[in-house]
Amino acid sequence: MYTLRWQDNKLYLLDQTKLPVEHVDIECSTYEEVADAIKNMKVRGAPAIGVTAAYGIVLGAMEYVGDKGEPFFSHMEEVSRVLAGTRPTAVNLFWAIERMMSIVRDNMDKSLDEIRRLLLDEAHKIKYEDIEANKKMGRFGQELLKDGDTILTHCNAGALATAGYGTALGVIRAAVEAGKDIKVYADETRPYLQGARLTAWELMEDGIPVTLITDNMAGYFMRKGAITGVIVGADRIAANGDVANKIGTYTVAVLAKENNIPFYVAAPTSTFDLALESGEKIPIEERDPREVTHIQGKRIAPYDVKVKNPAFDVTPNRYVTAIITEKGVAHPPYGSSLKELVLKAQ
Amino acid sequence: MYTLRWQDNKLYLLDQTKLPVEHVDIECSTYEEVADAIKNMKVRGAPAIGVTAAYGIVLGAMEYVGDKGEPFFSHMEEVSRVLAGTRPTAVNLFWAIERMMSIVRDNMDKSLDEIRRLLLDEAHKIKYEDIEANKKMGRFGQELLKDGDTILTHCNAGALATAGYGTALGVIRAAVEAGKDIKVYADETRPYLQGARLTAWELMEDGIPVTLITDNMAGYFMRKGAITGVIVGADRIAANGDVANKIGTYTVAVLAKENNIPFYVAAPTSTFDLALESGEKIPIEERDPREVTHIQGKRIAPYDVKVKNPAFDVTPNRYVTAIITEKGVAHPPYGSSLKELVLKAQ
Repeated sequence: MYTLRWQDNKLYLLDQTKLPVEHVDIECSTYEEVADAIKNMKVRGAPAIGVTAAYGIVLGAMEYVGDKGEPFFSHMEEVSRVLAGTRPTAVNLFWAIERMMSIVRDNMDKSLDEIRRLLLDEAHKIKYEDIEANKKMGRFGQELLKDGDTILTHCNAGALATAGYGTALGVIRAAVEAGKDIKVYADETRPYLQGARLTAWELMEDGIPVTLITDNMAGYFMRKGAITGVIVGADRIAANGDVANKIGTYTVAVLAKENNIPFYVAAPTSTFDLALESGEKIPIEERDPREVTHIQGKRIAPYDVKVKNPAFDVTPNRYVTAIITEKGVAHPPYGSSLKELVLKAQ
Repeated sequence: MYTLRWQDNKLYLLDQTKLPVEHVDIECSTYEEVADAIKNMKVRGAPAIGVTAAYGIVLGAMEYVGDKGEPFFSHMEEVSRVLAGTRPTAVNLFWAIERMMSIVRDNMDKSLDEIRRLLLDEAHKIKYEDIEANKKMGRFGQELLKDGDTILTHCNAGALATAGYGTALGVIRAAVEAGKDIKVYADETRPYLQGARLTAWELMEDGIPVTLITDNMAGYFMRKGAITGVIVGADRIAANGDVANKIGTYTVAVLAKENNIPFYVAAPTSTFDLALESGEKIPIEERDPREVTHIQGKRIAPYDVKVKNPAFDVTPNRYVTAIITEKGVAHPPYGSSLKELVLKAQ
């Protein structure tokens, strides 16, 4: 199982819209194809989107035919504009594009081929750093889990949402690797069903016991005492610790608080957006109503019904027990603890 | 639009598993067909199930060939056993069967044809009383709604869940009839999608503005201030005011409390089960995993994944702002207010 791989100057993505029923690769040889794959959620998950966009920048540089200097630079600005325009909420996308564009800016005196080589090196670096970060996150995070815990997760913050290993599911993997007996409840995560299609499948592949439930069942199992902790990923974390993540995360956090269950967020520091004071300013993507009215092409709602489809919500910091990163675990008050983590060497 | 109708000694049910895409009738001429229709959710909703079971008893009596007295009575006990075994949570089912069986018991000296006529009269009475109760509930309940309110509802507690007019949607209808501007948000209500398929359709047919959302979006819209109240139905209400209703209702109630939004339950007093001290003892039906893993026959989850599928949950009384019935509105403490309502003449 891989989320993305680079081979023969092309980017291959595992088509996550077809999982788990079909396992199909998508071949991207242009940056526009990469942008389409992100927009149409062929690849999704904040860290995975960042890595994918980095390779999109590489393809953009490879496609270029023309003079070096200003014409090349303005082409690359267009490439990054198109890639950045795919999805608004996950900040890792902008973080990765900015990191790639700084390579372009810092090496304008070099030949185009040299710049292309440097960009490919940087994309590989971003990819491997992501996997490494997830493994470190796993080691820090697993200490919060007890032998015998049953952990609820929402959406997919697993290997498929990253370059590998996963954030929330990375913590669960690390706990299992440390010999702890961990069971998982996976919210199916409407409308896109990442929990049913991706998380359940990923955990079954790894032999980690998973029970699939619909989103509205989580509260029932918390109240029954069947769930002892929650771990989710994040698409953007503001300076005060407010967390944007898949729609429904706020609900899970409220239910966890009401039932005295710890609510953990696992995300690399590239998910932090310390320029934003609070989560109120995080842009929330509104997606196609068809995601709600249709499932796998079949209509399940009245023709022409009015629909809202926000893809994310913001969980206020007061519901977040701890934030697990590759540099350690941040506790409230997040205003200071997140800054400290960012300044800390790995 | 009708939920059920009696014609030429047969019961016709609108097949709610096919709505809103297809409008198909089911013809029941035996009590076993009625039991199957309830079990397979061709008809659903606590009050509608009660009325349907009443007509099932009528069909059971009509089918009988044999002597009056003991043989007939033991046949009718078998009929009521089969009908009562269809679904365990909604108490209206047992209430309606018991009411019909008391007609049998009280008239054992009469001819079989006379008993059959009395049973059919009683079933019609239960049906019309249900519609009347819903209209009264609407008049009491609509006083709790303000002009300009946006009401969230979960599952379908509408005309389709009753003999007509609806409980939760009856209150909304009555508020609209009283000239109030009311908008509705409908949770789609996985796994069975009663909100997407039935509530959205029913309200659109009536011209009441409805917005369809997935279950995990309700919290987001409450926190944004877009929702000003919640009204749901009930399948069983214990003596202390704990409310069993469609899975996900507890979650909506917790979110409403957290966001200081009133949470109302609308249900006829036939939904009360005052013999149960609290909701902890209400049996919760666990349904087929396929409802979660498949949507309209299409698989959306890994093959062989472990699934839980409780169809109901219990909302503790502390989350319930008021309970709206055909005899008036009960407020906390419910231990006394529910008993008072039951004793009150209509």
